Amino acid sequence: MISPKANLEEPRLVLRRVVVEALQPEIDGGKYPVKRTVGERVVVAADIHADGHDVLSAVVLYRPEQENAWREAVMRPLLNDRWQGQFSVETLGSYIYTVQAWVDAFQSWSRDTVKKFEAGQDISGAALLGARLAQSAASRAAKTDSQKLSQFSAALGSLSNTGGEAVAALARNTELAELMGRYADRSRATTYDKKLGVTVDREKARYSTWYEVFPRSCAVEPNKRGTFRDCIDRLGYVSEMGFDVLYFPPIHPIGRTQRKGKNNTAQPSSDDPGSPWAIGAEEGGHVAIHPQLGTLEDFKELQTKARELGIEIALDLAFQCSPDHPYVKEHKEWFLQRPDGSVQYAENPPKKYEDIYPFYFESEYATELCDELKRVVFYWIDQGIRIFRVDNPHTKPFDFWEWLIREVRVKYPEVIFLAEAFTRPKVMQRLAKLGFTQSYTYFAWKNTKWELTEYFTELSQSPVREFMRPNVWPNTPDILTEYLQYGGRPAFMARLVLAATLSANYGVYGPAFELCENRALRQGSEEYLDSEKYQIRRWDIGNPTSLKGLISRVNGIRRENPALQSDWSLRFHPLDNDQLIAYSKASEDLSDVILVIVNLDPRYKQSGWIDVPLDDFKLDPQQSYQVHDLLTDARYLWRGSRNYVELNPSILPAHIFKVRRRLRTERDFDYFL
Amino acid sequence: MISPKANLEEPRLVLRRVVVEALQPEIDGGKYPVKRTVGERVVVAADIHADGHDVLSAVVLYRPEQENAWREAVMRPLLNDRWQGQFSVETLGSYIYTVQAWVDAFQSWSRDTVKKFEAGQDISGAALLGARLAQSAASRAAKTDSQKLSQFSAALGSLSNTGGEAVAALARNTELAELMGRYADRSRATTYDKKLGVTVDREKARYSTWYEVFPRSCAVEPNKRGTFRDCIDRLGYVSEMGFDVLYFPPIHPIGRTQRKGKNNTAQPSSDDPGSPWAIGAEEGGHVAIHPQLGTLEDFKELQTKARELGIEIALDLAFQCSPDHPYVKEHKEWFLQRPDGSVQYAENPPKKYEDIYPFYFESEYATELCDELKRVVFYWIDQGIRIFRVDNPHTKPFDFWEWLIREVRVKYPEVIFLAEAFTRPKVMQRLAKLGFTQSYTYFAWKNTKWELTEYFTELSQSPVREFMRPNVWPNTPDILTEYLQYGGRPAFMARLVLAATLSANYGVYGPAFELCENRALRQGSEEYLDSEKYQIRRWDIGNPTSLKGLISRVNGIRRENPALQSDWSLRFHPLDNDQLIAYSKASEDLSDVILVIVNLDPRYKQSGWIDVPLDDFKLDPQQSYQVHDLLTDARYLWRGSRNYVELNPSILPAHIFKVRRRLRTERDFDYFL
Repeated sequence: MISPKANLEEPRLVLRRVVVEALQPEIDGGKYPVKRTVGERVVVAADIHADGHDVLSAVVLYRPEQENAWREAVMRPLLNDRWQGQFSVETLGSYIYTVQAWVDAFQSWSRDTVKKFEAGQDISGAALLGARLAQSAASRAAKTDSQKLSQFSAALGSLSNTGGEAVAALARNTELAELMGRYADRSRATTYDKKLGVTVDREKARYSTWYEVFPRSCAVEPNKRGTFRDCIDRLGYVSEMGFDVLYFPPIHPIGRTQRKGKNNTAQPSSDDPGSPWAIGAEEGGHVAIHPQLGTLEDFKELQTKARELGIEIALDLAFQCSPDHPYVKEHKEWFLQRPDGSVQYAENPPKKYEDIYPFYFESEYATELCDELKRVVFYWIDQGIRIFRVDNPHTKPFDFWEWLIREVRVKYPEVIFLAEAFTRPKVMQRLAKLGFTQSYTYFAWKNTKWELTEYFTELSQSPVREFMRPNVWPNTPDILTEYLQYGGRPAFMARLVLAATLSANYGVYGPAFELCENRALRQGSEEYLDSEKYQIRRWDIGNPTSLKGLISRVNGIRRENPALQSDWSLRFHPLDNDQLIAYSKASEDLSDVILVIVNLDPRYKQSGWIDVPLDDFKLDPQQSYQVHDLLTDARYLWRGSRNYVELNPSILPAHIFKVRRRLRTERDFDYFL
Repeated sequence: MISPKANLEEPRLVLRRVVVEALQPEIDGGKYPVKRTVGERVVVAADIHADGHDVLSAVVLYRPEQENAWREAVMRPLLNDRWQGQFSVETLGSYIYTVQAWVDAFQSWSRDTVKKFEAGQDISGAALLGARLAQSAASRAAKTDSQKLSQFSAALGSLSNTGGEAVAALARNTELAELMGRYADRSRATTYDKKLGVTVDREKARYSTWYEVFPRSCAVEPNKRGTFRDCIDRLGYVSEMGFDVLYFPPIHPIGRTQRKGKNNTAQPSSDDPGSPWAIGAEEGGHVAIHPQLGTLEDFKELQTKARELGIEIALDLAFQCSPDHPYVKEHKEWFLQRPDGSVQYAENPPKKYEDIYPFYFESEYATELCDELKRVVFYWIDQGIRIFRVDNPHTKPFDFWEWLIREVRVKYPEVIFLAEAFTRPKVMQRLAKLGFTQSYTYFAWKNTKWELTEYFTELSQSPVREFMRPNVWPNTPDILTEYLQYGGRPAFMARLVLAATLSANYGVYGPAFELCENRALRQGSEEYLDSEKYQIRRWDIGNPTSLKGLISRVNGIRRENPALQSDWSLRFHPLDNDQLIAYSKASEDLSDVILVIVNLDPRYKQSGWIDVPLDDFKLDPQQSYQVHDLLTDARYLWRGSRNYVELNPSILPAHIFKVRRRLRTERDFDYFL
């Protein structure tokens, strides 16, 4: 752009001929970075054009943020002045990228010279111009290349009188073209006016399998409180099911004032343990451990044992206090005080949450408050924690999270933050944009084929995917959906397969999930009866009706099939029965194609005809192919697009097919890929 | 956003709770302004949300660019955290706008207090909080308002012990709410991080009716060259047809070197006049008038006479030179020189245009060149010209145009630039973005119902409409489409109605158009035979088959119906015959609804059933309504959505219906609106 107030003494017009616009991906005008995990690609596209008819060249410029030198990836024109190039991110942290494009004088010369030659025109003048261009490139080139370019220049110059075929041959010479490309004159190149960011996370940000459990319910002996030591004993069970993140609700001391009793009643009995989210008591606050769970040493040992089994412990960041939290005495200024001087409890009128004091971020002491909360996060990082599930982030200022997550990532780019923001779509998206690594979603309430198709198409195909990574949960301690309440075991099986295959990040709250706990507090409520939030539960984890085996199988399939470890390849496929949903995921090279069919009706057998996208899967319509059900190990020989499926929910409401192309012509299953 | 490198001594965290994002309209991240004409509205929408559950308030801030004080327009929430507000632009030049939003403490208090009261809760504490808020507003308020607010504060304070109904009444008090709104605490308001621009043009930028004519063909006597004086005599004819812009191809001296003869041949006869676009000869260049057209005084008189008839003269800005242009001698440095020292003529290999020397904007003397071209524009502005049709702007750098148009608009915001960029879509759009007032389009080549529907939906409904104003032409001296060549008079009639009703800006190249000149240079060519570009033509403008009468009628209908004077209301309607296209335009208050049906088949009568959008037109499905053909004055009584239409192209291939709603219940046509 030309400055309107440019000094008349200076050259006022720097006429850059090339335009670079509509660059993608770009979030909110470049305000926020896109997200990738190590090894993933960033495909960059832009509209690139100039006045006139010259040939243009363009590159993606990119680098790890802390480096100085740009790397380059060549862009190629697609259609309609759209260009595209790509690069991979190889190190944790941040990358930046932009686009540069220029009028390519040599390529223009080469094209025009060949055209003139082919039209029988005199190209002796062209030879001189070509010589001039090559000599100019020689002056920019390194030694050997410079010599070669000078030789080309001399050759062209010597042809100015003979012209013709020899000039055209040089205009078509690939070595010359390659050299000229390397030393193109970019002095008038246009660089896109913004540098855009990539947040590079570790793989677990993209592919993770979560299990939520209340440590205090992990004791084996009846009538005992579970401890971290009991959790250590439980690790084998969790590992057998194939989970790699074990997430605990808050492990801190729990307040006594206004403590809630069983089933969220206002009158607790003396042995009611209280909600873990009512954080803080005499024993300490957000950096303390509930004495009945164990010691910091126990907690560290638990982490060590978990790590040995490939499991990471995730903690809950619930930035709120019980009335007994030390902060309430020591830093009353961090809370909103009512006109009578008392601290304002949480409320959403007419509802009151008198056991919870929210922090007051509009306080003039907000800076100190934020520093303290940051200290809490760094404390747990120092204890080895690298994954945080953040409770209700949408009730604290966006700016706070943006600052906090940036502060953490500068030192610990491997830290993962999961936003539990069950709120309106744009708030949820904003939290993802500003830095949360993963986000809870509306999955739990998407039950019909239409809902699932719409929602997961949006999550995996719209620009939202650039910054928001879904983590889907069929249940949580707060959410026992109607579908699970009334659908019984088949409903739990169907929701498990949906969660685990629609999203590379998913989790369940157990053992309630695998034991198909479906008793609600009352009709119309999504709260559990005898919720673990307010009481300790004993779970019969050895029960033969447990879904443990199925979960183990499903998570094993996820581990063995890269297609299920990322989300962008998700596509839904037509199936002529609205109770059956069909979709696929595939690895980029199509070496792994997974086709999932789920019966959404937990009561009745459903059947229908699926349209398999043969083209997408690169299947020969004239050849049979095999669909291998990884859940049951059954193999079916299919041919063509339309094929019959039938699923009985009381047996197993889903197929997870691996699509195997024929490798040889023999009709031997072993030869399918 | 919080700066990551903020100084530790300073308060690091300014936590703004409200987010303002996804603001529309915004072009390329605010780089370019949207366009409006005086009196038009700018509807501004944004996603606005915050953490928590507080009530928010938001306004559009806007002002003429040269003023300092913001004006405000209240925004209202739509759905899904989307808010909307609007303002009108009232003065020529530029406006700027942005959005501001804040957590509204009073409205939050008011809502919560009423909820608590209705739930039977104690609200004595709420009374004190309300008193505090009112007192704070009083401190920001002007004198009388401040007193009133203090009184409200006192009233609330006095109720802290009694509470109940009286507090709730104050929480619902509209006067208090209005005062609190006026003096809301915006100290922590979020203002959107960009200021966006509006280019405000005069009405003709949106609604104009162009007639292109070669002045040298305007003589009445045979074998005479037309002059400006002949043009004066022709003004009545142009005015009777209802045109308000009379556009001339370049009026400058024409070069002799490499002059093209009749039908673009290389060997001109001595009396061939040459192409007006080969600008410059001994007699002068871009600021000279061709001596055979007349003098500057003649030209000024022509402008005066035209103005009396409501016609403005538009000139052609063709920034290129004939080899005889004075610039070529005086400023050889403004042209690209070939290795042999000669000036490079225009070429698009293998095609050569040896009569045209393009300017070389990559020259190191580009600044002087641009200054000179600016001088040319200001020269003609000084001679009274306020409309320029710009020849091939896409062959000069975008930055040049952006600078030139800005320089002109600072002094003369009423100047209109029409971009003749028959080139790729994104180049066309970029020229519109950077400042061109109107743009030629692909209309001439859009002939089928599908093409017209797609294209005009894009132009009138997509974000492109914010910056690109189409000016559609069925023909130009360069473009005689196949449709016109083979469709005969019915094709000209159909294309006239389409151009004049699909686009508020349109033009024709006459008298070729009204005389249905359809002889092409050769089959497959869009060039006219005996093109006026290379020879002088005599036109029989009094010919009885002329479309003069129809043009006059169509332009009269445009003048009388505001619906046809802007484009954004354009909607296409289903009609079960692909040869018939149906669409409507309406004024905002629906006082003017125009429904157009055109038979696109120039050969055969076509009929079909149209679906009239009764809801959109606010027509009662139980009542008949009248469609009044403004072309023929025929009136039809229709009822319900589906109605029959039939059009015979040899008579008249179009209806331009005014849709008249019934005003009274009597079945008397006069009572239709």
